[in-house]
Amino acid sequence: MPTGPALLTDRYELTMVAAALADGTADRDCVFEVFARRLPHGRRYGVVAGTGRLLEQLPSFRFGDAELTALREQGLTDPRLLDWLAGFRFSGDVDGYAEGELFFPGSPVLTVRAPFAEGVLLETLVLSVLNHDSAIASAAARMVGAACERPCIEMGSRRTHEQAAVAAARAAHLVGFVASSNLEAGRRYGVPTTGTSAHAFTLLHDDESAAFRAQVDTLGVGTTLLVDTYDVAKGIATAVEVAGPQLGAIRLDSGDLPTLASAARRQLDDLGATGTRIIVTSDLDEYAIAGLMAAPVDGYGVGTSLVTGSGAPTAGMVYKLVERDGLPVAKRSEGKNSVGGRKSAVRRHDPDGTATAEVVTSGPVEPREGDRQLVVPLVRGGEVVAPSSPSGALSAAVAHHRRVREALPPEAWALSRGEPALETVTA
Amino acid sequence: MPTGPALLTDRYELTMVAAALADGTADRDCVFEVFARRLPHGRRYGVVAGTGRLLEQLPSFRFGDAELTALREQGLTDPRLLDWLAGFRFSGDVDGYAEGELFFPGSPVLTVRAPFAEGVLLETLVLSVLNHDSAIASAAARMVGAACERPCIEMGSRRTHEQAAVAAARAAHLVGFVASSNLEAGRRYGVPTTGTSAHAFTLLHDDESAAFRAQVDTLGVGTTLLVDTYDVAKGIATAVEVAGPQLGAIRLDSGDLPTLASAARRQLDDLGATGTRIIVTSDLDEYAIAGLMAAPVDGYGVGTSLVTGSGAPTAGMVYKLVERDGLPVAKRSEGKNSVGGRKSAVRRHDPDGTATAEVVTSGPVEPREGDRQLVVPLVRGGEVVAPSSPSGALSAAVAHHRRVREALPPEAWALSRGEPALETVTA
Repeated sequence: MPTGPALLTDRYELTMVAAALADGTADRDCVFEVFARRLPHGRRYGVVAGTGRLLEQLPSFRFGDAELTALREQGLTDPRLLDWLAGFRFSGDVDGYAEGELFFPGSPVLTVRAPFAEGVLLETLVLSVLNHDSAIASAAARMVGAACERPCIEMGSRRTHEQAAVAAARAAHLVGFVASSNLEAGRRYGVPTTGTSAHAFTLLHDDESAAFRAQVDTLGVGTTLLVDTYDVAKGIATAVEVAGPQLGAIRLDSGDLPTLASAARRQLDDLGATGTRIIVTSDLDEYAIAGLMAAPVDGYGVGTSLVTGSGAPTAGMVYKLVERDGLPVAKRSEGKNSVGGRKSAVRRHDPDGTATAEVVTSGPVEPREGDRQLVVPLVRGGEVVAPSSPSGALSAAVAHHRRVREALPPEAWALSRGEPALETVTA
Repeated sequence: MPTGPALLTDRYELTMVAAALADGTADRDCVFEVFARRLPHGRRYGVVAGTGRLLEQLPSFRFGDAELTALREQGLTDPRLLDWLAGFRFSGDVDGYAEGELFFPGSPVLTVRAPFAEGVLLETLVLSVLNHDSAIASAAARMVGAACERPCIEMGSRRTHEQAAVAAARAAHLVGFVASSNLEAGRRYGVPTTGTSAHAFTLLHDDESAAFRAQVDTLGVGTTLLVDTYDVAKGIATAVEVAGPQLGAIRLDSGDLPTLASAARRQLDDLGATGTRIIVTSDLDEYAIAGLMAAPVDGYGVGTSLVTGSGAPTAGMVYKLVERDGLPVAKRSEGKNSVGGRKSAVRRHDPDGTATAEVVTSGPVEPREGDRQLVVPLVRGGEVVAPSSPSGALSAAVAHHRRVREALPPEAWALSRGEPALETVTA
């Protein structure tokens, strides 16, 4: 059984390699660029995510016996192709935006320089990882922004593919979600995990009181009790009766949350549970979170809308050949033009440190005061630069994102549809 | 490193198990039911997909040393919980709709009967798999319907998580997509794979003619040449010049496809390439496919909108405790009511064999002529019933789906938003 990612690839990458090997173009020096033509849905910014996951997988992108057998069985029998794949090991260079960086239309998020056959082979995996993870991170960042300083918890595993769920938990943590429900995200990336109970646990018991008592006995009075299985007011009364006024939190998962949260706060305070927090979780997205800003809510659990990118489940990044043997190339298809040539990029800032433009040029950028270089080396000669543990890479990305997001102008935080917060200057 | 799916689980499943073990409720006989409260976006029907993938993973849902260590590191240290998990092996029964079956609001798509602790543990994985795969299959089925008999090819791997891509290719094939670009879907499930070349391959070469010649030399004149890198009319002329009138197909990936396809057909016919097919691929969804019905198009390649569920990236299925110790249970949360008790379901048909209703009852259904039982046994005493290879299970689902979809009333094929094609009768 193949254990690496090499077959997570579109067949046409291999047919192109076969044809290029046959006519001698496979070795041409090529530069491929990953970028998004636009931000989805009038978003103001995007967040680059997935780079760490991609670099984790790169060393095992190899064609062993299992992979080659699978290719033969699918009719890919060209001996020259199979020989070449058997010896394949990516030997090129990769540069890109640091994970957690913001991106705008045309930002050169990743650049792969390699012989054609090596570079084209990575296309599908590169795009799968970056498009998925960046879509989740971009949506999650808006939620974190809407929540201001209140904590957000990721709990959408059940609404997306079981492996995508792990990547989604990682992407959410990258932009500031404090925890996830997903245990594998905890193991693989060190994402803090959290969880208490579901309605089923209450229904399992003879009454709500017995369920709450069982939970408090096992998890302590600091736990979060789910109070809306039957009647919220009775649920809260029972919760405080069982756990005492030191109860950590209650969770509301249905109904009109602003109204319910206000009533719950009054009731908790009247019962002396003034420190008991209120967590809400019912089909939240960035708009619902913003709508709860005036309500006495202490934390948000977000599921479906997070793992599905809140209306934009893919980042729409493409992987385009922009240079061949040092010459810029670009297709001229209607509505899908691209700009040839390898790019440089800086983020320009005013004297106060607020970002003012994304400068993307085909040649080197003439540096100005306040410019920050956006492209950093990721792979050199096939070796990942500064390799780090999966959790170390994620921590670095969390810190980088927090830093760069502070430089955004205020209009970036608008949830309404509009233009990107920074203009991409291609001069 | 864990190799099984046990950690692809929300933490609260384990905290509930811990609390239930402590208070003696873990062994209560429970029935959990998977259903969708509604179909997304005014869809007329949904397609159950993922069952085969779920049953593949069930036997390896175990907690070995690697999993237990990971749990301890995340603070799940309760010895009673860890002991129980170390010995865990699902011992219950699972019934459900056959994979490929249609579903409607309230259809009991999957039913798990087991002691509470065993049943609750499967919740996250069950929902992740079914919600993802059913969302893709439900969208893909509309595309296949809109394409009538013209072949659809799945090519969306790059727009979704790299592992979700494999499941998406499988789900698309299940409902009639003839092939996929994804090589791993070919290996794992026997999905036919296909692929020829991208714009990068043309740009790699000194001119279009050299690129086409390289491709034809390697893949034969039956291949599909991508003709829109520079100018479509010139591209077609060059394609036929290089490959001759026996050229298999051309592909159009940009521009106004109805206009371009008509012009391409005329040009190909004038060049004597009357058998050369026209494949189109630019951001298609079910509406764009329907809009091309009058155009001389021979096949559709679908990417983004397929793997993202065409606006409905998750099926919205939930996993609810409906019975405990033989008694129906249900929460009464506002807007999220559910109906207690284990369900039976039949699809009712008129004498012509057209489906007329989805009958879902808490007791057994009084059978009528033309009723078809929808619930079949999947797991008995923890053992998968009639285990079959992954590709065998998929073939069976393909055949089942084709059969049951023929019984749908004509209104089911409407792409417009509306009511479900069958009413769910809960009497």
